[in-house]
Amino acid sequence: MHTIRAVDWSPDGVGVRIIDQRRLPGAFVERDLRTLDDICDAIRTLAVRGAPAIGVAGAMGMVAALEPFVDEPLTRFSERVTFVAAAIRATRPTAVNLPWAVERMLRVAEASAGSPRTVALALHAEATRIRDEDRAMCDRIGAHGLPLLPDGARVLTHCNAGALATAGIGTALAPIYLASASGRHVEVFVDETRPLLQGSRLTSWELSRAGIPVTVIADNMAASLMRSGSIDLCIVGADRIARNGDIANKVGTYGVAVAAHHHGIPLYVAAPWSTFDPATPNGDLIEIEQRDADEIRCGFGSLTVAAQAAVHNPAFDITPSTLIAAIISDRGVHRPPYDFAETTARAPLLSHDAAR
Amino acid sequence: MHTIRAVDWSPDGVGVRIIDQRRLPGAFVERDLRTLDDICDAIRTLAVRGAPAIGVAGAMGMVAALEPFVDEPLTRFSERVTFVAAAIRATRPTAVNLPWAVERMLRVAEASAGSPRTVALALHAEATRIRDEDRAMCDRIGAHGLPLLPDGARVLTHCNAGALATAGIGTALAPIYLASASGRHVEVFVDETRPLLQGSRLTSWELSRAGIPVTVIADNMAASLMRSGSIDLCIVGADRIARNGDIANKVGTYGVAVAAHHHGIPLYVAAPWSTFDPATPNGDLIEIEQRDADEIRCGFGSLTVAAQAAVHNPAFDITPSTLIAAIISDRGVHRPPYDFAETTARAPLLSHDAAR
Repeated sequence: MHTIRAVDWSPDGVGVRIIDQRRLPGAFVERDLRTLDDICDAIRTLAVRGAPAIGVAGAMGMVAALEPFVDEPLTRFSERVTFVAAAIRATRPTAVNLPWAVERMLRVAEASAGSPRTVALALHAEATRIRDEDRAMCDRIGAHGLPLLPDGARVLTHCNAGALATAGIGTALAPIYLASASGRHVEVFVDETRPLLQGSRLTSWELSRAGIPVTVIADNMAASLMRSGSIDLCIVGADRIARNGDIANKVGTYGVAVAAHHHGIPLYVAAPWSTFDPATPNGDLIEIEQRDADEIRCGFGSLTVAAQAAVHNPAFDITPSTLIAAIISDRGVHRPPYDFAETTARAPLLSHDAAR
Repeated sequence: MHTIRAVDWSPDGVGVRIIDQRRLPGAFVERDLRTLDDICDAIRTLAVRGAPAIGVAGAMGMVAALEPFVDEPLTRFSERVTFVAAAIRATRPTAVNLPWAVERMLRVAEASAGSPRTVALALHAEATRIRDEDRAMCDRIGAHGLPLLPDGARVLTHCNAGALATAGIGTALAPIYLASASGRHVEVFVDETRPLLQGSRLTSWELSRAGIPVTVIADNMAASLMRSGSIDLCIVGADRIARNGDIANKVGTYGVAVAAHHHGIPLYVAAPWSTFDPATPNGDLIEIEQRDADEIRCGFGSLTVAAQAAVHNPAFDITPSTLIAAIISDRGVHRPPYDFAETTARAPLLSHDAAR
């Protein structure tokens, strides 16, 4: 039903093909990432972004970055695996999906016997599995979230947790795509999401491409829209979910959560199981990435802040679980009180399902 | 102490000299407005903005726009007064200061006997009075608000209710200027205030010019800054204050108010008495100006919203009085429950004071 592929293998099967999200909505440009620098640069500069998508891109990127080394001796290749994994993992600190995907790849590398070429094949297969699981995860999140979206629902979302943020149909937007496909009328309002405008640039692009009515607002208009009775529910994604259900997500999510709470509007968080981090007891222990002040100071090509003024630019904020009506994962709809214990979290989904 | 003059007479005493706020912070450009088109265009395009400043600019602008007609017959001049008043009054609908200033000018015109030149002189004197009252009003708001700002206060403000929004030292920023001048350390955080970035462009400019530490944040970061304990109080301006204390102010004010309320942080509103509109019982009866979608769609020179997506762009929102800890006017600090009755409101301040 949905043809956006934010991250996939290049047609030759080795490079990683992404939609360059820095260019949207003005231009639709696909890029093939082939070197470690390409991969790290694309993740760091948000050419590919969204917690699930950077997990997939990180895993696939390891394969691409290791390709030139498959004819090296095994020890040299193994060193390179470690180096590549560390470099990709270090690109962005907040989302847990990236280290999760890299660790899965490292486990496969360790478990593989044989030549570098054999290891590389196993890594390629694992990266493909991570991509396919991500797609299946999106479909399941959509199916679990669908009952929360009545016909006529007016939904507020923030940033982009859609197809562009995953290898499939998205997380927060997955129930919206499925509701629309099943004939329900759903209307979406999206915060533009300063500083990088993922809401206005990306969410408005992918939803209107799919024929779903979408209205862009400035971030500071969400609360008054709620007050006017124009919003029935909010759905956002997450970059990390602590054991107690606190979430880290794009900065501004917390303000949406506070406003929704004030107006008695439910806030749903949609995220794959790979986003859950039971090792982190609560949200305040999650590291928040601080990004370059220039994203706010001159993000639109001209100086918009006085030269002597300081700028504060965290990429994420923490929303405490007390403000979250439910968390929709590929495993179901989780209601408070949340306790995502270590034992149940982060099992690879397809193998988990295959075992049943 | 403060040398910014957002609106004043041109050196020749006839035109209206403004700082072109569309050019800040990149360039400091003063413009002299001499025709009715100049005046209306400057107000409509926010070259001059801020509820008190557009009141002053509207009154002074009437004088400038009438100057070419002072040698016409009285009936023709009087028709022109009516026409000019209506045109200036129609430029922006939400702030009450503009119609208030225009009405004052009309009353003076009606009460003046003699030739058009005599009437024009009376109007010039009245516009000067409105400017001087505005400056005095700013100083009084500053003095009344000063006790609310302890040494070390960390203040969040939204948009620009500073010197650039008035003929004097501002409304919301007036207590900050006075606190700083009296040796208290005050630190200001300002929302950039999408779509036109008056917070990042203007407030950061005038505060850092005055040596007051200021940090710009995206609008969507205010709530998490409050959660982290970094904000002691909020001060914002107002474009209209209803009888019950509900206020209209720059869109996003309501979100700040909800977040402040959630965190137990006081929100103060600072505005001159001319902003009070006792004829409007509550905020929901205030007309909200809807501005061009292009301010959000391509406000920074490139397309930031998908072509098929809709855009919602109200210039103001309503903050109910229940979220307002106090309203600081030039007459004092008003605490809830608010009831700004007709009889006490909008008396001309200087004449009021002179009568005492």
